[in-house]
Amino acid sequence: MENFQLHIPTRIVFGKETHKQVGELVGSRARRVLFHYGGGSIKRSGLYDQIKSSLVDSGVEVVELGGVVPNPKVTLVRKGVGLCKQENVDFILAVGGGSVIDSAKAIAMGVYHDGDIWDVFAERQRVERALPVGTVLTIPATGTEGGGGTVITNEDTKQKLAYSSPHLCPVFSVINPELFFTLPKEQIAYGICDMMSHIFERYFSPTQNVELTDALCEATLRVIMRNGLRLIKDPEDYDAWCQVGFGGTIAHNNLLGVGRIQDWASHGMQHELGAAYDVAHGAGLAVVTPAWMKYVYRDALGVFTGFAVKIMGVDGDFRDLDGVVREGISRLCDFFRKMGLPLTLKELCVPDSDEELELLAKRATGEARGREWPLGGIKKLYWQDVLAIYKLAR
Amino acid sequence: MENFQLHIPTRIVFGKETHKQVGELVGSRARRVLFHYGGGSIKRSGLYDQIKSSLVDSGVEVVELGGVVPNPKVTLVRKGVGLCKQENVDFILAVGGGSVIDSAKAIAMGVYHDGDIWDVFAERQRVERALPVGTVLTIPATGTEGGGGTVITNEDTKQKLAYSSPHLCPVFSVINPELFFTLPKEQIAYGICDMMSHIFERYFSPTQNVELTDALCEATLRVIMRNGLRLIKDPEDYDAWCQVGFGGTIAHNNLLGVGRIQDWASHGMQHELGAAYDVAHGAGLAVVTPAWMKYVYRDALGVFTGFAVKIMGVDGDFRDLDGVVREGISRLCDFFRKMGLPLTLKELCVPDSDEELELLAKRATGEARGREWPLGGIKKLYWQDVLAIYKLAR
Repeated sequence: MENFQLHIPTRIVFGKETHKQVGELVGSRARRVLFHYGGGSIKRSGLYDQIKSSLVDSGVEVVELGGVVPNPKVTLVRKGVGLCKQENVDFILAVGGGSVIDSAKAIAMGVYHDGDIWDVFAERQRVERALPVGTVLTIPATGTEGGGGTVITNEDTKQKLAYSSPHLCPVFSVINPELFFTLPKEQIAYGICDMMSHIFERYFSPTQNVELTDALCEATLRVIMRNGLRLIKDPEDYDAWCQVGFGGTIAHNNLLGVGRIQDWASHGMQHELGAAYDVAHGAGLAVVTPAWMKYVYRDALGVFTGFAVKIMGVDGDFRDLDGVVREGISRLCDFFRKMGLPLTLKELCVPDSDEELELLAKRATGEARGREWPLGGIKKLYWQDVLAIYKLAR
Repeated sequence: MENFQLHIPTRIVFGKETHKQVGELVGSRARRVLFHYGGGSIKRSGLYDQIKSSLVDSGVEVVELGGVVPNPKVTLVRKGVGLCKQENVDFILAVGGGSVIDSAKAIAMGVYHDGDIWDVFAERQRVERALPVGTVLTIPATGTEGGGGTVITNEDTKQKLAYSSPHLCPVFSVINPELFFTLPKEQIAYGICDMMSHIFERYFSPTQNVELTDALCEATLRVIMRNGLRLIKDPEDYDAWCQVGFGGTIAHNNLLGVGRIQDWASHGMQHELGAAYDVAHGAGLAVVTPAWMKYVYRDALGVFTGFAVKIMGVDGDFRDLDGVVREGISRLCDFFRKMGLPLTLKELCVPDSDEELELLAKRATGEARGREWPLGGIKKLYWQDVLAIYKLAR
């Protein structure tokens, strides 16, 4: 295990009706809030009205900015930054899924940043300050409600870049599993896949002596998968949402990733797909992850045996560890299939010619911009490796 | 699952040499620190000098108060409160095990409390403010380094009372597993037993639909037990200490206990032993816990079957669940024995006449003070139940 610091400052407010506490939670901290959200779904469901009433009843002044889309765009972030400055906003409340929350975080740091906010992402500039952000989660998936990360897409440069800072951890996140009842099944599946991937990216580590966090990863993955299948059958299963809702948060607040080198190659490869073709993040991960596993597992046979046995429940012939691991990967594909997820680039409707994939591979590793930075932790992946993985995913 | 809030504000600074960061960690927050510790062990090991150098090098003024003993006493807390007020201390650094940290927390709230600090414990007064506390952990056991609880003993009234407030969460806790290398084996065993008990008290819950936290409890317990045995063989096994050191913190920061009714009967029964006979906390828990299990398991056969199978690895005849659970309890006793822990009141050297035990049972439930408050969550225990459990532990 490597030295680490773990700090999880976000207060999780979890359970039925908890979204009605939002006025109180914001009111104790702020006077003028940016209410940031996506499209019309929160208006149709009545959530918009409930949040607004709760805020107004607590004496908070509300400035609104809707319109966040999946793979949230820097254009709207810039608009939000301008609005916050103009209206003297002192708190941002994100009501939505990962895209809305990430957009809110980017606005929060943009308010104190001189110059264009995209430079922070592109040049990895250090941010020392941000407006406080609170969230009401409507789609459990990205885990951004419990951490300091944000991922924003630049439509012009076709880049999707991540940024992380302790200043971006929400001060509170409200998780009411009842708000997830109306999610379409494909969205449920995307969310489950995303949270699984957040754990995989930490679990598949070359670091030795991380037995406790390995066991926590395995436990969380098993529970998320079991309950994911329950939710595809019945999206109004409150108890299953409780496990998945909390599971998605701890999947990505780094509790499960402390003291270890992490991987993040699958996310890197999917981010390129997302930026170029606007594919749903969870769908892209379902395509890329098994292909990645097939390509790298021989370099970490022990870790992948653990995955097959402890997570996927393989009880095979251990004289053939290769077979055990391949059975594990096959079960993962079966699980994704049961969840209704795509398994190939074709199903994702992504152009998969050699030329297209080479371009993506070179973008994913930075080679396309002349500064290659290999992906991965358990195995370093150069653009040729990434290309081979994309080809396995055809 | 029940509604909950989870807030874990303590920054964990974990790994080799991390105690040397303490000056920096304190210096960014304070100018005048109370350096609080126990006996001579940190002086003999050289830790005292390293901490003091680190503080002084960061320009922090140091006021000292040593002398904390196991089952920390309110007398020293009162002395610490006076010293902090007199010396205008603005931060308390606890260097030690759970007793030192608990003593530091009690001093921290005493500084802002009008009147005697014991009243806060005895009358469960609400505390609105406390000095910030940081810790350097030298004995992993109580988990107090990651939470807002403190337990203090009043020598005059022979009471050992717990108090908890979010204001008492340390702002940071330094966990360097190398500092644990010199712990005597009995202290290692007590610590392991204490952290196991913190998880048991949460795991044995009547609340349904807590599958994720159940799985996290099971995973953490298995890892702590496996590595506990490694440490009894080799107390300088850094990797094993990493698992146990971090395991002890998450065992008690309430991550594993969210959304569920908790039990705490075993702690309640042991606290009475600790207050009356000054027995080591972990030793008392090893005696009380299996007896408690034998007494209550039939009221929650499912949960106890999970304990036997998933934690203790029982693979028995499931037509006889009773036998499966009893085998699980028997394996727990075997584990405690391998760790060198006592299993009976006799081994604890506690007087175990019917009269003595009745007095303890009546104290544990409050009956002795005329206001009975049954112990337990999975099964309510009145003084007659507690007496029966003490008798099972003879």
